[in-house]
Amino acid sequence: MATRSVLLVVAPDQRGLVAAVAEAIGAVGGNIVDADQHTDADAALFLQRVDFETAEGAAEHFAVRFADTAKRLDLRWELYDAARPRRLALVASRELHCLYDVLARCAAGELDATVGVVASNHVSTAEVAARFEVPFVHIGGVDRGEREAVLAGAVEEAGADVIVLARYMQILSAELCAEWAGRAINIHHSFLPAFAGARPYHQAHRRGVKLIGATAHYVTADLDAGPIIVQDVTPVSHRDDVYRLRRRGADLERVVLARAIGLHLEHRVLAYGNRTVVFD
Amino acid sequence: MATRSVLLVVAPDQRGLVAAVAEAIGAVGGNIVDADQHTDADAALFLQRVDFETAEGAAEHFAVRFADTAKRLDLRWELYDAARPRRLALVASRELHCLYDVLARCAAGELDATVGVVASNHVSTAEVAARFEVPFVHIGGVDRGEREAVLAGAVEEAGADVIVLARYMQILSAELCAEWAGRAINIHHSFLPAFAGARPYHQAHRRGVKLIGATAHYVTADLDAGPIIVQDVTPVSHRDDVYRLRRRGADLERVVLARAIGLHLEHRVLAYGNRTVVFD
Amino acid sequence: MATRSVLLVVAPDQRGLVAAVAEAIGAVGGNIVDADQHTDADAALFLQRVDFETAEGAAEHFAVRFADTAKRLDLRWELYDAARPRRLALVASRELHCLYDVLARCAAGELDATVGVVASNHVSTAEVAARFEVPFVHIGGVDRGEREAVLAGAVEEAGADVIVLARYMQILSAELCAEWAGRAINIHHSFLPAFAGARPYHQAHRRGVKLIGATAHYVTADLDAGPIIVQDVTPVSHRDDVYRLRRRGADLERVVLARAIGLHLEHRVLAYGNRTVVFD
Amino acid sequence: MATRSVLLVVAPDQRGLVAAVAEAIGAVGGNIVDADQHTDADAALFLQRVDFETAEGAAEHFAVRFADTAKRLDLRWELYDAARPRRLALVASRELHCLYDVLARCAAGELDATVGVVASNHVSTAEVAARFEVPFVHIGGVDRGEREAVLAGAVEEAGADVIVLARYMQILSAELCAEWAGRAINIHHSFLPAFAGARPYHQAHRRGVKLIGATAHYVTADLDAGPIIVQDVTPVSHRDDVYRLRRRGADLERVVLARAIGLHLEHRVLAYGNRTVVFD
Repeated sequence: MATRSVLLVVAPDQRGLVAAVAEAIGAVGGNIVDADQHTDADAALFLQRVDFETAEGAAEHFAVRFADTAKRLDLRWELYDAARPRRLALVASRELHCLYDVLARCAAGELDATVGVVASNHVSTAEVAARFEVPFVHIGGVDRGEREAVLAGAVEEAGADVIVLARYMQILSAELCAEWAGRAINIHHSFLPAFAGARPYHQAHRRGVKLIGATAHYVTADLDAGPIIVQDVTPVSHRDDVYRLRRRGADLERVVLARAIGLHLEHRVLAYGNRTVVFD
Repeated sequence: MATRSVLLVVAPDQRGLVAAVAEAIGAVGGNIVDADQHTDADAALFLQRVDFETAEGAAEHFAVRFADTAKRLDLRWELYDAARPRRLALVASRELHCLYDVLARCAAGELDATVGVVASNHVSTAEVAARFEVPFVHIGGVDRGEREAVLAGAVEEAGADVIVLARYMQILSAELCAEWAGRAINIHHSFLPAFAGARPYHQAHRRGVKLIGATAHYVTADLDAGPIIVQDVTPVSHRDDVYRLRRRGADLERVVLARAIGLHLEHRVLAYGNRTVVFD
Repeated sequence: MATRSVLLVVAPDQRGLVAAVAEAIGAVGGNIVDADQHTDADAALFLQRVDFETAEGAAEHFAVRFADTAKRLDLRWELYDAARPRRLALVASRELHCLYDVLARCAAGELDATVGVVASNHVSTAEVAARFEVPFVHIGGVDRGEREAVLAGAVEEAGADVIVLARYMQILSAELCAEWAGRAINIHHSFLPAFAGARPYHQAHRRGVKLIGATAHYVTADLDAGPIIVQDVTPVSHRDDVYRLRRRGADLERVVLARAIGLHLEHRVLAYGNRTVVFD
Repeated sequence: MATRSVLLVVAPDQRGLVAAVAEAIGAVGGNIVDADQHTDADAALFLQRVDFETAEGAAEHFAVRFADTAKRLDLRWELYDAARPRRLALVASRELHCLYDVLARCAAGELDATVGVVASNHVSTAEVAARFEVPFVHIGGVDRGEREAVLAGAVEEAGADVIVLARYMQILSAELCAEWAGRAINIHHSFLPAFAGARPYHQAHRRGVKLIGATAHYVTADLDAGPIIVQDVTPVSHRDDVYRLRRRGADLERVVLARAIGLHLEHRVLAYGNRTVVFD
């Protein structure tokens, strides 16, 4: 009977913002369950996430009333029904560990989402999708334009809220990046900004680093330069050749990607410019 | 045409052990690819792992000759064909994330083993096994004796080298622990020795720790006290209630368990007393 | 001309707390620079830290007015002048690395505090204090009562806000623990609750763990059971005997202790029961 | 009465190396206490560290005899008396936390070395040196040539085995880098190769990374591109502005640098090309 909502707010920094949001929620009888905020002093921005409960129907009233507050204070906002089911589109290539991992997490209830489609430029991936009874789309076509049309169509048809590039090894066009802005998550197998681009484990081995990493970020037209959501590393040694780096890295990749998806699904990530605030 | 072997050695510490092993391998024309050793000064023990190549058939010659060396130096040894395929038995209960993870890793080739059987005291687990086309056995019976007979039979029939307790929530009898000594791996969801026994995330929450952990260890009759193979932790905060601890912990558990299985499959773990040497 | 204050609040959870605090600060023309809050659902407690700016003198007005709000809402509160200089008492025994570390951090400006006194049951520690031109007190006496009187007197005379047990190897009486409640910080050289009490590195080595840890906590009459502020671990292997564990652990200890002191000095730690909220 | 020696070996990979070294040590009645080796398959190189005990005087015999073995097998080698006292030259600029840390570790016996000199381009650093009764040299002069002559002279006069750039903010000439090859250690405040060069915390903040790091490496003429000895990272969040990044990073820097110095002093690091083998 109670509705749980998540409100995300981004505004020019100014006095009274916390109070204004709290009052607006109080005005419809809402109860704040959890709130977190951040002020980016350099950007003069205030960012907030509020998780609140209302009686059924009151969230709509809130939305109507809050529009006025937002106008007055010049704030951008998004309001989510926390209970609304979410859908993922998973996009992969030849490496399947991240794909398996996200599918298993959705099946086991660790990620609160259903997988609407698996798409891949490798037909062999179909078998993995079949194991989890998820529709499969082969990203075929004579050129990138055709292939991206297939991919975009698959995402559209699946009704996907979030597009997950689970080690998809193709570069997306600027157009597609723009269309999916803020809802396509990529996993890159290095601690960015080091080793952007192709074959990061080879690059890492050549440099002789003592750590390898993985980075989950929103996709933008700048390759591997989008806002970072989660990063992690693991120690390596001279014993780790490229083969072992890839194996160790695979563990990082799946955990970092899953963590980023989970945070995104719970509306805990606010991206602005090429950075994020993560209210974890 | 070349055979790759792994030799594990445990001996009372004495001069000349490294040279004796190297000579024995050299005597059959073998080439040492990788070697690692450790002396436990307190226990006065020497432990070694040698990965070596020989011409086909020469490994058998080595084994015959090395028996003499072993007798003379009072050393225990095991010799493995690195290419022999290995089989796992996976044992689970209600929590499925570790089970999914090991199955996916075997399917994706990250773990070099096939899964011979999935056994569980919960019939609902059968569905997971079916997704990966692995035989399923329900661990049923009127008492522990009967249930353990079912479980031991399933492991036997599957021809499993390694038994993985992938969040199996039943305590094994001392007899079964003894039978599976050195080849049954359990994942416990805490940084042992803290929070042994039931409900470690509840215990951790109650104590207000700032880290949670996971521990993979060989199963012994002493609950959660067997030789530790791999441990890891992740930071947590006051924001993490038991539900969130469990979710974060799940990531640790699967990675720690998979790491331990991989090390065991590559014959990198030597257990003695309640400790291990891990030649990683 | 502006005053920076930190307000800490603990209250029974109820609606309107965030708004009430924000209004009270707004009423004296204050500006919230940073705020963080947490609701402990199990304990039905609301905890908040607010960092705010006011015109000079306005903080006193705030304090007077806020007393009413606090009474009405049944909330406990503390108000700190962020600019007030803080003083430490450092208490050590034979191991000097933590002592050196805190002294150096204060000297280098990394910790925003002065050291008022160094006290130790080992006279050799005097030399370290002298290097940093800090008064030294030898904790001597015929029994614990006398020694504690010396120690308490030294802390009192130094005007210390915070007492840091920097590897002090004596157990404090329940009386002294009570007197210093919430302002005495201890570093224990294990990941508590594992290996409480004496010689934790020996205990860790005996158990064969693959991680060692350090824990900074508020001192209470229950040995090593006080509210935890910071914990961290580092991986170890079979190569690490007790001597190497101690060396590796020393790095953890100093960093964990320094981090806890820094958080405490910035009023970022709220302890309740045997747990803490750390608003970092 | 027994002498403890460390032998480092680098050779083209070939059969029989381990046996040859073991025999050579055995021939002078030596006992191998610890040995570790690595084969870099890409570079076709074998690298080994052997820690062994002999009767007094036997190490010299070993050296004479081993020269033949080395010639025959085309191996480079170094032999160290493990008990010989080592001396450090510490070079700093304005940031003093790493300098304090190394001085304190030497004073507390955590690093087995004495500090022969502290040199800095900032005279204010003299006070820190004085606290630890270490001679101070001001790196003055009209141009880089003069200043480097002062610095090189100070190192020479101090009889330093190892030069530690403890946040020294000047770029060394290629000549000085060559002269100090393999014995000058620098700490860079990022996870290299990311954020090489000036102001890495500013670079890290701008990029919005979720980790910051520190890297200890041997100094070479290529800025921040020398062989890496130790790296580590710590998680950061949107709450961490540049000031907080620097504070958190300072903890990493000191620990990473101290770890690298300790490994170097124990002859555990073999550098070749732009990489290292670290036998820890």
